[in-house]
Amino acid sequence: MAISVKDLAAHLQAELRGDGAARVARVASLSGAEADCLSFLADRRYRAALLQTRAGAVILAAADAADCPVPALVTDNPYLAFARAARLLHPEPRVAGGIHDSAVVAATAQVDPSAWIGPQVVVEDHVVIGPRVHVGPACILGVACEIGADSRLVARVTLCERTCVGQRVLLHPGCVIGRAGFGFAKDGDRWVRIPQIGRVRLGDDVEIGANTTVDRGAIEDTLIAAGVKIDNLIQIGHNVEIGENTAMAACSGVSGSTRIGRNCTVGGAVGMAGHLEIGDDVHFTGMAMVTRSLAGPGRYSSGIPAMPSAEWRRAVARFRQLDELAQRLAQIERQLQSE
Amino acid sequence: MAISVKDLAAHLQAELRGDGAARVARVASLSGAEADCLSFLADRRYRAALLQTRAGAVILAAADAADCPVPALVTDNPYLAFARAARLLHPEPRVAGGIHDSAVVAATAQVDPSAWIGPQVVVEDHVVIGPRVHVGPACILGVACEIGADSRLVARVTLCERTCVGQRVLLHPGCVIGRAGFGFAKDGDRWVRIPQIGRVRLGDDVEIGANTTVDRGAIEDTLIAAGVKIDNLIQIGHNVEIGENTAMAACSGVSGSTRIGRNCTVGGAVGMAGHLEIGDDVHFTGMAMVTRSLAGPGRYSSGIPAMPSAEWRRAVARFRQLDELAQRLAQIERQLQSE
Amino acid sequence: MAISVKDLAAHLQAELRGDGAARVARVASLSGAEADCLSFLADRRYRAALLQTRAGAVILAAADAADCPVPALVTDNPYLAFARAARLLHPEPRVAGGIHDSAVVAATAQVDPSAWIGPQVVVEDHVVIGPRVHVGPACILGVACEIGADSRLVARVTLCERTCVGQRVLLHPGCVIGRAGFGFAKDGDRWVRIPQIGRVRLGDDVEIGANTTVDRGAIEDTLIAAGVKIDNLIQIGHNVEIGENTAMAACSGVSGSTRIGRNCTVGGAVGMAGHLEIGDDVHFTGMAMVTRSLAGPGRYSSGIPAMPSAEWRRAVARFRQLDELAQRLAQIERQLQSE
Repeated sequence: MAISVKDLAAHLQAELRGDGAARVARVASLSGAEADCLSFLADRRYRAALLQTRAGAVILAAADAADCPVPALVTDNPYLAFARAARLLHPEPRVAGGIHDSAVVAATAQVDPSAWIGPQVVVEDHVVIGPRVHVGPACILGVACEIGADSRLVARVTLCERTCVGQRVLLHPGCVIGRAGFGFAKDGDRWVRIPQIGRVRLGDDVEIGANTTVDRGAIEDTLIAAGVKIDNLIQIGHNVEIGENTAMAACSGVSGSTRIGRNCTVGGAVGMAGHLEIGDDVHFTGMAMVTRSLAGPGRYSSGIPAMPSAEWRRAVARFRQLDELAQRLAQIERQLQSE
Repeated sequence: MAISVKDLAAHLQAELRGDGAARVARVASLSGAEADCLSFLADRRYRAALLQTRAGAVILAAADAADCPVPALVTDNPYLAFARAARLLHPEPRVAGGIHDSAVVAATAQVDPSAWIGPQVVVEDHVVIGPRVHVGPACILGVACEIGADSRLVARVTLCERTCVGQRVLLHPGCVIGRAGFGFAKDGDRWVRIPQIGRVRLGDDVEIGANTTVDRGAIEDTLIAAGVKIDNLIQIGHNVEIGENTAMAACSGVSGSTRIGRNCTVGGAVGMAGHLEIGDDVHFTGMAMVTRSLAGPGRYSSGIPAMPSAEWRRAVARFRQLDELAQRLAQIERQLQSE
Repeated sequence: MAISVKDLAAHLQAELRGDGAARVARVASLSGAEADCLSFLADRRYRAALLQTRAGAVILAAADAADCPVPALVTDNPYLAFARAARLLHPEPRVAGGIHDSAVVAATAQVDPSAWIGPQVVVEDHVVIGPRVHVGPACILGVACEIGADSRLVARVTLCERTCVGQRVLLHPGCVIGRAGFGFAKDGDRWVRIPQIGRVRLGDDVEIGANTTVDRGAIEDTLIAAGVKIDNLIQIGHNVEIGENTAMAACSGVSGSTRIGRNCTVGGAVGMAGHLEIGDDVHFTGMAMVTRSLAGPGRYSSGIPAMPSAEWRRAVARFRQLDELAQRLAQIERQLQSE
């Protein structure tokens, strides 16, 4: 859709500086924008591009407005305003209700007439699908799953039995929600599987990335609270609980029964041991190795950033000697003190 | 199903303390249990919950029996006994033989009449499927795969050509078994793919997690021995061999041609280099980085647990100086010795 | 197919030593080879196997030819010659054009008559599929995707809307190309999704592994250049650019907007932060943690190789004290200097 810059300013509650008559129809980067494009400046490293932009309008902060060669939409939080404008200009397609001929839908399933069930989908017994839900191609909805209104399963999503999905949830291709978790008892050398009778419950506005796996609880449920955003290729073990609005970047893993608080951020490839308690507002940088409970708020890191391989080999050799080096140091201190 | 506590005691070969007449129908946690529930105490941290439980019966060790306010099933290994009881109360549904209308099954495939082929499944030429096998929705069985009796492909499993699956194997959604592994020769700057003509062979009672990938061998086969349990999002490279009853937690990766022995445990997000020999009874904690062969038995770790980011930055800066620090220490020692 | 050793020598431009009349029909390892097998020696650790081999012919370097008990094909690069021979003996099956009855193909899609669309495939509107493309079972091709000639989607590949795939591209099962990347703005505590309007573009001869995810760009495109080889379970964030012939091993992750140069190699489970610039000919060993831009060429490493757990615990405790240890060392130096 296209909208005048003036109307966009009103929609965003931004201050318009310059001519509001032009219309913008899509978003673009400062350097790639043409006259029908809306762009934004949220990071001052890109100010050089601002000076050259040919965008139809630019969203930016007051401090940068004087440098803007085209109409400016001034706001305190340009990135958020851009997000809202982009959603306006590039809306998700409306869901048209119906069931594709190639879908296999159990007779006992309840599908709201306004929901779309795409090609090659499988809907098993007793599934309940709410209004305006979009179930994209080749999704599998296991026995007794429930999906709240306006949720979107992009494609090839697997919901195992009894998974509960809230409203406005976004599930990306290849994610597997509700697998029976990794629970075994030892019988001599052999492993005996323990039935996993809990569920996964995803709150409203949750997002789960592509090929991410969320295991169902052993007895109680695995809980992902409202507003949680989980990226691609992440493992969430059974009985994990994640608090509201926490966000996790790709390739991370959370072992069973760990609880993470609200408003946390987890960098890429972070690993968390099981049975931990992580408080609210805890932030982990990428590749952090989390082995203890942490009350929060706080910011935690681990790992050794990459260094030239030859230097690294020497440092690693010394790391193995660290305890000995520390003892030698203490020995010298004693010797000097006794002199 | 429901069973009397007395009959359950006999089934588990546990000692009954208290009234055996009550019937239990499902498992629950100590705190969540109602009168028709069986619970257990395997970790003494939960003893407070034991005192309050309203379960119909509790499995526990002799040392805890006196504290149990309800009928007790006393056994040496409460967790194993609980696993067995849970399997009795929550059995996998029986497989009803048949082929769903929407499945595509090659004329040359041999499907045992007692096996179930679910909706949207693809069975290619020369596949052999044994008795009581459950092939859930949207699985793909490539040319000439073989699946042994009583195996269960939950849903959306991909078996590439010629994969051999043993009996009672459990394959979770999204796993890809038998992909052509990552083998290339260099031709100047370009990579030339080497055909991967080996197979993957999964032994009896193997379990492979959701979205895990197991590559087929380059020439010989990739071998996963009986009883091996592999969690979600794990990569097993071509020509890897894993010995009986070894268990691997999620997000780990094993590079090509590495051999892992029997009865090993591998924590989450462990990485193993290629062409290693890991012996029997070797245990790795989470995020371990395995770059050498290890004879076993033994327990190995690596990684730096997360610390406050500001402290971590200082420690990392010192890590880069470690070799220099060690040399300065040695210099001081020489100086003190020569005085 | 079978070929005489003499003809094979000509095909490989290798020097034949011994009788060229025998025919070989398949490849095998030195120890597993029978008379109809071609084998090779590329790593001198396997010379003992060479002495015992019963292969029909062996590809090897001149220095090893004297030890070969069977006809030898002598070449400077035995591994490359073996790759070529294996491709000759084990060719990919030819694609027979057509569309399987169970596929769902939109009326607006353009499918070359020589392309194969397999069972349970979904082809959405405005997709363009080139000559001799193989679309294996259960692939999903989203709106307006384009696939160049001779590409092969093995099975269960998901291409999200507008993905562009070059020629001779190989996509393995479960990969998800073109998911809307992980882009959000904060609105108080809540995350607001930013529409991702870029695409993924895969160059010619690219390979993407099983269950790997490549996110589409936020505004501009995510670019994977010609000849890039990406293994299983890898995450490529939005707006990443990877240069020609770079190869990445399994379980790695690259955060958004990072650019990697040409001819790089990335070991398994490497993590790269976002917005980095990595030059040409940069090589990372497994589990490296890449947090800074690196001009290249060069070889970089990080991580602590696994050590016995008890030693590791002591070393980790000392790591936390590293800054303090370094300060104590400096203090001693000052003290000694002032004496």
